[in-house]
Amino acid sequence: MNAEPRTQTESPDVLISRLAHAGRAAQRALALLDSAAKSRALHAAAASLRAAEAEVLAANARDVAAGQANGLSGAMLDRLRLDPARLAGIADAVDQVADLPDPVGAVLGTDTRPNGLVMSRVRIPIGLIGIIYESRPNVTADAAALCFRSGNAALLRGGSEAVHSNRAIHAALIAGLTSTGAPTDAIQLVPTQDRAAVGAMLTAAGLIDMIVPRGGKSLVARVQADARVPVLAHLDGICHTYIHAAADPAKAAAIALNAKMRRTGICGSMETLLLDAQFPASQAVVAGLLDACCELRGDARACALDARILPAAANDWDTEYLDAILSVAVVDGLDAALAHIARHSSHHTDAIVSEDVASAERFLAEVDSAIVMHNASTQFADGGEFGLGAEIGIATGRLHARGPVALEGLTTYKWLVRGDGQTRP
Amino acid sequence: MNAEPRTQTESPDVLISRLAHAGRAAQRALALLDSAAKSRALHAAAASLRAAEAEVLAANARDVAAGQANGLSGAMLDRLRLDPARLAGIADAVDQVADLPDPVGAVLGTDTRPNGLVMSRVRIPIGLIGIIYESRPNVTADAAALCFRSGNAALLRGGSEAVHSNRAIHAALIAGLTSTGAPTDAIQLVPTQDRAAVGAMLTAAGLIDMIVPRGGKSLVARVQADARVPVLAHLDGICHTYIHAAADPAKAAAIALNAKMRRTGICGSMETLLLDAQFPASQAVVAGLLDACCELRGDARACALDARILPAAANDWDTEYLDAILSVAVVDGLDAALAHIARHSSHHTDAIVSEDVASAERFLAEVDSAIVMHNASTQFADGGEFGLGAEIGIATGRLHARGPVALEGLTTYKWLVRGDGQTRP
Repeated sequence: MNAEPRTQTESPDVLISRLAHAGRAAQRALALLDSAAKSRALHAAAASLRAAEAEVLAANARDVAAGQANGLSGAMLDRLRLDPARLAGIADAVDQVADLPDPVGAVLGTDTRPNGLVMSRVRIPIGLIGIIYESRPNVTADAAALCFRSGNAALLRGGSEAVHSNRAIHAALIAGLTSTGAPTDAIQLVPTQDRAAVGAMLTAAGLIDMIVPRGGKSLVARVQADARVPVLAHLDGICHTYIHAAADPAKAAAIALNAKMRRTGICGSMETLLLDAQFPASQAVVAGLLDACCELRGDARACALDARILPAAANDWDTEYLDAILSVAVVDGLDAALAHIARHSSHHTDAIVSEDVASAERFLAEVDSAIVMHNASTQFADGGEFGLGAEIGIATGRLHARGPVALEGLTTYKWLVRGDGQTRP
Repeated sequence: MNAEPRTQTESPDVLISRLAHAGRAAQRALALLDSAAKSRALHAAAASLRAAEAEVLAANARDVAAGQANGLSGAMLDRLRLDPARLAGIADAVDQVADLPDPVGAVLGTDTRPNGLVMSRVRIPIGLIGIIYESRPNVTADAAALCFRSGNAALLRGGSEAVHSNRAIHAALIAGLTSTGAPTDAIQLVPTQDRAAVGAMLTAAGLIDMIVPRGGKSLVARVQADARVPVLAHLDGICHTYIHAAADPAKAAAIALNAKMRRTGICGSMETLLLDAQFPASQAVVAGLLDACCELRGDARACALDARILPAAANDWDTEYLDAILSVAVVDGLDAALAHIARHSSHHTDAIVSEDVASAERFLAEVDSAIVMHNASTQFADGGEFGLGAEIGIATGRLHARGPVALEGLTTYKWLVRGDGQTRP
């Protein structure tokens, strides 16, 4: 099924329906494999990917050459480009996912009723996961491995910039998986770059169980706007760090600098710094950022802290810069900080720096974000840092799974009822 | 806010937006109440409802009279009608929900990372829940109590048949809640019967966090088709009971009779009976159903069991009768039963009757339904029977919550990260 291109007369809806039915059938077969068999299949896929280094790098070179010819930006080309070390890293990640604990089959709770019925909830795979992504070819292997480890089938739709790389990686993975007897269609790559196929995936309710978009804001926004299938994603990462009056000055300066400047382009980077008016060392905190070549845009009181701070415009408080730019406001106490965050946060990650535990606990309780931190850099917002081993993404929706999502977020549950002939009175 | 009718110029979208913002603000206040305060408020609401018996029954009499004048069916009028005993039952149910364990604040897991960061997940309310329901006025109190107990605000939109009853019940509940200082807008009733208000609720993504439809299939189908907000619901309850070759004949007959005939109109009633060709007592099972005045529609082999069985049409296998009608097929073994269920089940509740544990465990593992049972009547598909104390509904979707949903299904979680100044390398 994987290798068959779309026939001349097949519409995108028919194509996606055909692939989804094949994926669902493969998922039922995959669900019968035990944890060791799934692990073995993924290790074989990783080995196959290493063995296919020449083919994958040649395919990638075609994509990079086409990207250069089409004027892709340097950042885009960097995301696209593979080399032996990067490919080895991708294969290593598949090996690591293969060794993560299998979430499927875990009993979430059991209750024996007075009539003797035993009710239990057990974790099961969700089913068929659609992954829609852009230029990073590593997503082909990462997402496929996470879905497979958790017993889900994956339907992958990568960006056209990486089409040859994705096909080569997918072919290598499938060769490895099927060598162990795993079902071929458990990981499928949509064989067309027709954009209408993405629309068909987004509306395939009942055929695709969940969509995970991986890419820039415009991709995620389109997926969230058009999808009739549940979406696991975050749109913005407008993360705040609030330096409380009782913050330790050294921790405050170190956390603020790290939260913004360690990597400015990731979703967990701080975009707004809130300085308590009673915090005595605000000047040192902003000086540290300015000295590291971060542009600061402040409200009137923040601008008074350092002549290098530019005045902020109204939309700065709702802007995800993903760059060495930071908005800075001075706030009057915890309640004002909570109000600012309630109004402007994207519910991704927000942090307080304080030595006062009561204030910190109030912040943790009252901020309504997927991740709320005390005395730590927002750059820790990452499944690996949370001990999940990997992540399929970070979710800012309120249902099913929030924050960094890995294997457990790719499962659901069913109720099992064991009786001995009970009828209901 | 509750008492204010829609102003002349306010569109349904503006009305729902106004109510939703008020509900969200109330939910933030509600989230600060501890378990005992929420319990106290609900007990006060139950007492207030009992004290308002005269007003509620008078309002209900108006609705019943209007329903009779408008030619409502006897079944609809019965769902609508309240009397002192039924009203006492509604108040008792509120008291019971008040005493259920509060799910909010439970720590779902904690992990201390090598760098000293402590990651934990804690249960929190979802936010604002929209309930869209039909003629049963008890839903006004039941759904409001479940939402409130779990820290959620509720936006209720009842059917026009019950408009006076719903307003009287809502007013009594609010009087009780607010007497204890609980936020008034935690439970709001949409003040118009304009159907466009339902559409506005269904598309209020970002303002309403989840919609729960309570009512007949056409209501649920409309909600599922039009909603941009996540929906917790089931559309069909096409429940199967498979009598395996190794079933105990007495258990098989008793379970089949109970699963169909105890109450034929509920979603957990059996709609299709699968008899294994090797089960020796099929004639007794179908005779028991026929003798209880159940109409049986069978495939050719089922019809051969008893002359009173009518031939089934193709669509009988996909029909939820909600009546004393049952489709019956004879199948060749467990695999054939699993294949029939995979094709025709609505993923609500399916059961096997067998004394062979290995076959039963295969059935439990392989049937992809929210509830899978062994040696028990499908009529047990009910939150109360599962020990949940109550239920807001039964969900057949795959994400967030499945099967009977009560307080826990009305919660989500957030990640709390506690550090001591960690920055990310």
